[in-house]
Amino acid sequence: MTPRFDVIGFDADDTLWHSEDSFYEVERRFGELLTPHVADGVDVGAALRATERRHLPISGYGVKAFTLSMVECAATVSQGAVPAAVIGEIVALGMAMLIEPVRLLPGVADVLADVGADHRLVLITKGDLVHQWRKLELSGLAHHFVHVDVVMEKDEATYRRVLADVDAESERFCMVGNSVRSDVLPVLAIGGHAVHIEYQYTWEHELVEHDASVVRAASILDVPALVR
Amino acid sequence: MTPRFDVIGFDADDTLWHSEDSFYEVERRFGELLTPHVADGVDVGAALRATERRHLPISGYGVKAFTLSMVECAATVSQGAVPAAVIGEIVALGMAMLIEPVRLLPGVADVLADVGADHRLVLITKGDLVHQWRKLELSGLAHHFVHVDVVMEKDEATYRRVLADVDAESERFCMVGNSVRSDVLPVLAIGGHAVHIEYQYTWEHELVEHDASVVRAASILDVPALVR
Repeated sequence: MTPRFDVIGFDADDTLWHSEDSFYEVERRFGELLTPHVADGVDVGAALRATERRHLPISGYGVKAFTLSMVECAATVSQGAVPAAVIGEIVALGMAMLIEPVRLLPGVADVLADVGADHRLVLITKGDLVHQWRKLELSGLAHHFVHVDVVMEKDEATYRRVLADVDAESERFCMVGNSVRSDVLPVLAIGGHAVHIEYQYTWEHELVEHDASVVRAASILDVPALVR
Repeated sequence: MTPRFDVIGFDADDTLWHSEDSFYEVERRFGELLTPHVADGVDVGAALRATERRHLPISGYGVKAFTLSMVECAATVSQGAVPAAVIGEIVALGMAMLIEPVRLLPGVADVLADVGADHRLVLITKGDLVHQWRKLELSGLAHHFVHVDVVMEKDEATYRRVLADVDAESERFCMVGNSVRSDVLPVLAIGGHAVHIEYQYTWEHELVEHDASVVRAASILDVPALVR
């Protein structure tokens, strides 16, 4: 029997492996490092998110952009009082994120092997080029994918381009990911299909209001049944 | 008459537009900012290059990685004495690089139009994903290229993959760029052809000793004749 889909796309961060929890932990540590150097009542977390929002169109997604936002925020929010040693620790936090081990979500390898048996799998992810490729290599999952695309933005134009690159039709494409904004809505908009898997944390930037009816899975373990 | 090549690949930074001179200028400014805060006789430039070399395998190429190296180097080389305001200025230097105007090298648009009339053109560049795409958009050159690839490393495997993506054979491919290490040697190694255009500055990391015979052009204006 011909499978319903030809190509299954997977998001990477927080779909195949944990990512956002590291940002949370580093942001918590950043707050601890900064607290002694800021005035009472200053919300370091809010200041960091404001810096990130301002930088996003310029520096894009990923750990290096996040680290530069932390550094700039530290200098600003402390009104110049943060010691250089703390700045050094902040950069070290970011560099450590870039080389931390990949922690796969449960069942990911089995699910990719299963779904990959009768579909072409592609990986479509945002973020740092060098970081995403390192994580994919460390994950041991690279061989499941016929195509890997680290993209700037997951919008309709990007999905159209990726589908053209792998010579697939949108009706025969299903995307799997944890962001309704990035993995679901633009795919539905071009006539494709999508499965949303909720992760424990969602980056503020990825939150979106919508009235589309979205296919939801409790975990990636439900994906094989949903795409067949 | 069938042209000698099917696909012409172009490097971007210092081949189509100026780039390395900005790094030089920012590094000069970095030295000025740091000098009041480091001990006599400390070579700030050498310390920065050492930091860059150490970071390169972790954070990759591009302005964000360079900026993080400057920040870490400032904290270290000043032995913690650099004020947060100077750190803020260093981050601002990096962010400014990410949005500075694109300065095309002379004749680039005409050469791409000329060569593109009877070849498929592809752009193959290293660096920050978001930065390289922004520069390409700002350059007004994007429409010349049938394929754009921002890659992590320009090695034999990368060129093989790009040629497969555009369905081209290496004997019918010619790469044009300013780095013998990245644009010439790996292409020759897979049976392709290359034209080296020297730029006024070469990043230390791109310098390489070799005994390959390399086709050299004084400027991109010589490329149309060389590829026909």
